[in-house]
Parts: sequence; C-alpha cells; structure tokens
Amino acid sequence: MEYQTLLVERALPIARITLNRPERRNALALDLMEELTSAFKTLGGDDDVRAIILAANGPAFSAGHDLRELVDGDINQYRHVFDVCTDLMTTIQSIRQPVIAQVARIATAAGCQLVATCDLAVAAEDAKFATPGVKIGLFCTTPMVALSRAVGRKRALQMLLTGQAISAETAAEWGLVNQVVPADELESATRALAVAVAESSPLTVALGKQAFYTQIDLDQPKAYAYAKEIMSMNALAADAQEGMCAFLAKRAPTWVGR
Amino acid sequence: MEYQTLLVERALPIARITLNRPERRNALALDLMEELTSAFKTLGGDDDVRAIILAANGPAFSAGHDLRELVDGDINQYRHVFDVCTDLMTTIQSIRQPVIAQVARIATAAGCQLVATCDLAVAAEDAKFATPGVKIGLFCTTPMVALSRAVGRKRALQMLLTGQAISAETAAEWGLVNQVVPADELESATRALAVAVAESSPLTVALGKQAFYTQIDLDQPKAYAYAKEIMSMNALAADAQEGMCAFLAKRAPTWVGR
Amino acid sequence: MEYQTLLVERALPIARITLNRPERRNALALDLMEELTSAFKTLGGDDDVRAIILAANGPAFSAGHDLRELVDGDINQYRHVFDVCTDLMTTIQSIRQPVIAQVARIATAAGCQLVATCDLAVAAEDAKFATPGVKIGLFCTTPMVALSRAVGRKRALQMLLTGQAISAETAAEWGLVNQVVPADELESATRALAVAVAESSPLTVALGKQAFYTQIDLDQPKAYAYAKEIMSMNALAADAQEGMCAFLAKRAPTWVGR
Repeated sequence: MEYQTLLVERALPIARITLNRPERRNALALDLMEELTSAFKTLGGDDDVRAIILAANGPAFSAGHDLRELVDGDINQYRHVFDVCTDLMTTIQSIRQPVIAQVARIATAAGCQLVATCDLAVAAEDAKFATPGVKIGLFCTTPMVALSRAVGRKRALQMLLTGQAISAETAAEWGLVNQVVPADELESATRALAVAVAESSPLTVALGKQAFYTQIDLDQPKAYAYAKEIMSMNALAADAQEGMCAFLAKRAPTWVGR
Repeated sequence: MEYQTLLVERALPIARITLNRPERRNALALDLMEELTSAFKTLGGDDDVRAIILAANGPAFSAGHDLRELVDGDINQYRHVFDVCTDLMTTIQSIRQPVIAQVARIATAAGCQLVATCDLAVAAEDAKFATPGVKIGLFCTTPMVALSRAVGRKRALQMLLTGQAISAETAAEWGLVNQVVPADELESATRALAVAVAESSPLTVALGKQAFYTQIDLDQPKAYAYAKEIMSMNALAADAQEGMCAFLAKRAPTWVGR
Repeated sequence: MEYQTLLVERALPIARITLNRPERRNALALDLMEELTSAFKTLGGDDDVRAIILAANGPAFSAGHDLRELVDGDINQYRHVFDVCTDLMTTIQSIRQPVIAQVARIATAAGCQLVATCDLAVAAEDAKFATPGVKIGLFCTTPMVALSRAVGRKRALQMLLTGQAISAETAAEWGLVNQVVPADELESATRALAVAVAESSPLTVALGKQAFYTQIDLDQPKAYAYAKEIMSMNALAADAQEGMCAFLAKRAPTWVGR
C-alpha cells in the first residue's frame, strides 16, 4: 500500500491510518479522501486486522473539505466532491472492523463529520470540534447528517448555526466522543480501546457492527424482527458456540473467526 | 397467579414483580421469560394496578439469556429463544401501566435490555450495566435495539464493542436510567416514583404510554398528525374533562378511568 | 403589524416576539397561537430579519393550552385547537431564520413544546420545564412529539408520566436548552446568540435550517443522498463562493443573500 497523504501501519491485530498532510491541515481533498477510502477498504478486507485507529499528524486532525475544490467549479465538480466524501463515510461504517478516531487538536466541518462517523472516538483534552461552514457561506450539510445523529437536535443546531467550536469535554458530554484523556495519553488510551475491541471474535464484531447500523435506521418493530434473526444465526456460528462453552466451562475462548 | 421464577405482589395501586431465581442470577431462561410475559399481561389487564415495579432478588438483577439454551441447538431453537424474548420486551411497552425497573447489582445483556425497555428505571449506586455478548462470541444484537435507542450511537457502540460495564452514575448521565440512589433507598425511591405515576388517571396514563411508543417511531409530520388526533380524543374523555374542570376550580380531581 | 397578545420589535438584524398576556400566563389560546403563527410568518418573509427571539412577559414563559378552550366542547373544536397548535410549531421550524427561545420562569405543556420546537433555547437559572398534562387527565401528547425528540426516551417518559418539573440545569444536561445563564443576563446572552447567528449569510442559514429538519427524519442513506445534493447546490451560490474566496484570501466576506 503506497499512499501520498496517509501513513498506514499494521501493528497486528491493530492497524493505524494517520492523515499525513499537516501543511494542508489534513484537508479532505479529493486525493486524500480517495486514498483514505482505499485504505479503509484494504484494511477492511484484511483478516489479521481487528480494529483500525484513525489518527492525524500536524496542527489539525482535519480541517474539512479543501475549499479550493469548491470554488470556480460547476455543479458536477461539487457533486463529485460530496459523492467521494459520502463514500468515505459510508465505507468507515460498512467495513467489518471497528474504527476508532484518535483526535488531537481541531476537527472541523467534514473533519468533525469524520469523528462523528467513526464507531468510537477518543479525544485529547485540548481537542476541539466545529462545523463552521455557515461562516463561509457553505452550510455543513453533509457533516450534519453524522453530527445530528451523534449529539441530537439542539446541540447540532447550535454547532451548525453558530459555527462555534466545542471543547473535548463538551464533546464527551454530548456523546460525540467516548473518552477524553490528557494529550500525552491519547495514543495509549486509543490503543487500549482498540486492543479491548480486538480481543473478541472478529466474526462477532463484524456481524455486530453491521447489525448496529442496519437496525438503528429501522423503527423498533422492524429492528427487532431483523435483530432476532441475526442473533439466532450468530448463535449457530462456531465462535459463538466456542465462546459460550468456554464461558460455561470458565476457560478462555479460542476464536476461529467463523 | 402461581410462578416458579417470580414473586408477584400487589400492594395496590402498585404491583411488584421480583425476579426470584438468584442461584441462576435471574437468567432470562425460557421459563422465566414466559412467566414474566404472563405476569405483565395479567397485571396489565388488572384495573386496580396503576404502576408496575420490576425488581430482582439475588446477586444480579439479571444476567441475560441462559446460555445453556443457546448451545448445541439448531436455528429453530435459537429463534424460539429470541422470539420469546422479543415478546417479553414488546409486552412491557404495550401494557397500559408504566413499568419501572428497580435495579440493584448488575444487569447484563438481555438483563440490560430489560432495563432499557422499561418505561422508567431507578438504580442503586452500585448497580452496573453491560452488554458483554461480544466477549463470548454472541453479539448483544437484540439488546442493542433497546440500548441504542436509550443511550445513542457512540455510547451504545462502546458498550457493545468492548463489553465493558458502565456504572449507575454513567447510566444516569446517558439516559439509561432516570435516577440513582443509595442502595438502602432503592426500594423506597422506586416506590415513590411508582406512586407519583399512579396518582394520575389510568385512562390518561395508558393512552399516553401507548401514544409515546407509537409516535417515537414516526417521522415528525406523521407523529404530529397522529398525536393531535389522540390528544383531541383524549380531551373528550371523562377524566380529562374532570381533570381540567378540577384544575380550573382549584380542587382535586376524581378519576373514573374513562 | 398589530397584535393583541404579542409585542413584536425589530432591532435589525434581530426581531423579538414577546408573549404578552401575563395575566393569563401566556396560555396558548387560539388567538395567541394564531397571532404567533402570523408573526413568525411575517418576520419569516422579512429579508432584513436574520434571527428571531421568542421571549415572554409575566410570571410564566407559557402555561400551555388555554384549558377553557378544551372543556365542554366537541371533537371538532378540540381538533381545531391542536391543528392550530401544530401549525404554529411547524411554522417555527419552516421559516428561514433561526428561532431562539429566551426562557424565564416556567414553560409547561405546549409552552414546553414551544421551547423544544425552537431551533435554539437559552434559559434563566430559575427557569423550569414540565409536561404536567397527565395530572389533569389530558396527556401532553402533542408536546411529547417535540419533547421526546429533544431529550430522548427515558427522560421524556419521566416528565410525561410524572408531570414533575425539571430545572434549567437539568434541561441543559438533557439537551432541551442550549445554555443556562443568571436571570439578569438572560436577555443579553440570548441576543448574543442571535447576533452570532445573524452574522452569517441569510441564504446559507435558511438553506441549512431547512435541510436540518428534512434530513433528521430520514434514514442515514437517504439523508446523505439528500444532503450531498443540497450541499453541491449551496456551493454554487454567490454567498458560498464569496465566503470561501474571502476565507482563502483572509478577508471578511460580504453577503449578497443569494
């Protein structure tokens, strides 16, 4: 895997993708988004990878879209940018491994959307989050899809209508991130979370992650109709039988991944 | 009412169901789930019962499914378990009286789902909540339906993907329970909440509870179209006319239940 | 604009509507609701108004419906009340400017719904919020539509089933209001929020507000399909091009409103 805008490391069972265009504040330019989607798809297909950390180098986690791709263009050019961006967000939630954002410094606009989209997120105490598009005439409409589903109505509207940043502590109170830690513990805390996730059966994790995003968009009766069939089939799997038998026998399970 | 796994007491206008299989940590075995659904239906049809408390004896509120019913079986056996479980959860939300979980010690997997499913919940300070299925290869997929609707995306995913428990205090911050009290005040605090609910017209409470779960699954325009018709019909009821006239005359209302 | 129950002031770019029937605790009587809807529509069509504050004079922000309109009537009369009320709530979310509730003292029933419905809300420290209809036999069914979407399931059910009030601090923790300030700072804090919102392009704000309420009711794939097209078209607008170019050139933008 050769990337211009990313660093990708595999320290199995964890993989780490680092946004690595610090001089452009890791803007979600087309080339970076395409590389990022490609990296997620590649790692997503890698049986040895059990959790993926998304981190960033430089003065910003990500500054959102590259505005130079959104000026002096036509509608089809702009559509292409938001198609590629939506593909990226959809990919993160559709791959089999949990994706954990490791957020230092500021995540704005589509950068904030990236955090809202990851399955889990850990932030440094000095991290900040904003959807400031309204201040430059371009409302953060696609980021709002992920943001409003993470933090709820009034809080999403506050961020979207004022463009003002919230602190990491507020982001945790609102459910945008799972955990806030001192900056010098960010990497270790994120890794610890990834390791906790990676200990479980990859089959079970993948099945559960996919089921999560399917059921959350259904009304409750349909969600149950779906969930109970998934769980019945899950119980048939070798890893479930192994896990339950190990639990009943008070021994550690051995996963076979099916 | 004769139950093997439950204690059912009527201290009118409150009824209390106590999970009473402490030696099996109140696992939601088929027989217990069937008795519990039956108890809710029986009390649900009892005009003298105005609120129902769901409590538990023993070292756990409930440890979730009985794993012995999920090993060495076939798909139809597993489907039967999750059908019976979903019937139980649906029954709790469909009966006319509010159901209040009184949670001491640990509620895990379908036991945590039970808390998420009850209309209201009070927890002791030392209570804990977890959806640890991922650790034994069987993702808490049906519990996730109730959990994710109670606590939101990132927090539900954290519990589901790590399997780690949260404290009662965290459960209250996340909206999984309404109130946290010292362990020795748990019973009285739960009863006080039940009494507060039981003071209102049973017709109004039943109508409101049913309307809640109907509208929450609709988009807002449909929810309003539904809600305004329900509220117009509610205003026609004898208890509404009595309640409003009593309020305007500054006297206490007398409910007739229709 | 001549109103019997409201004061309407334009201190451009902000407009302020003040419920002004203190002797009736700003009950949402039919005439007041009709005037309020009319005021929102009039200001909503005013290009010079960039944000609207909804405040109240007297001992209550609003006490909810006028019960005298809900006794001794027939179903069509009651339907008319809830039709007019739902029109009011829908109008608030459909006009182009953000609407900010400025809440002192108590907001109950449809008065609480009004706060939940506004795009943003600021509360004084001594403000209280309740949906107490259950106590007078008339469940707060239409208020519940807005309330449950703002605060979530368990918390909404607590308010609806007990009728008990919550404090301003609790309302902020639950996401019903955005900010709590000392009573003597309420007006200035609300105005500051309105001014922050009013600085942005009115085209962008209007487009974003409308998109918010459209996407929040869609499942995520449909929300993205919708949002990415809206954002692509937004990027074509003069104000977006101006805003992005100004940002890239590090100068202040000049909005033309298209």
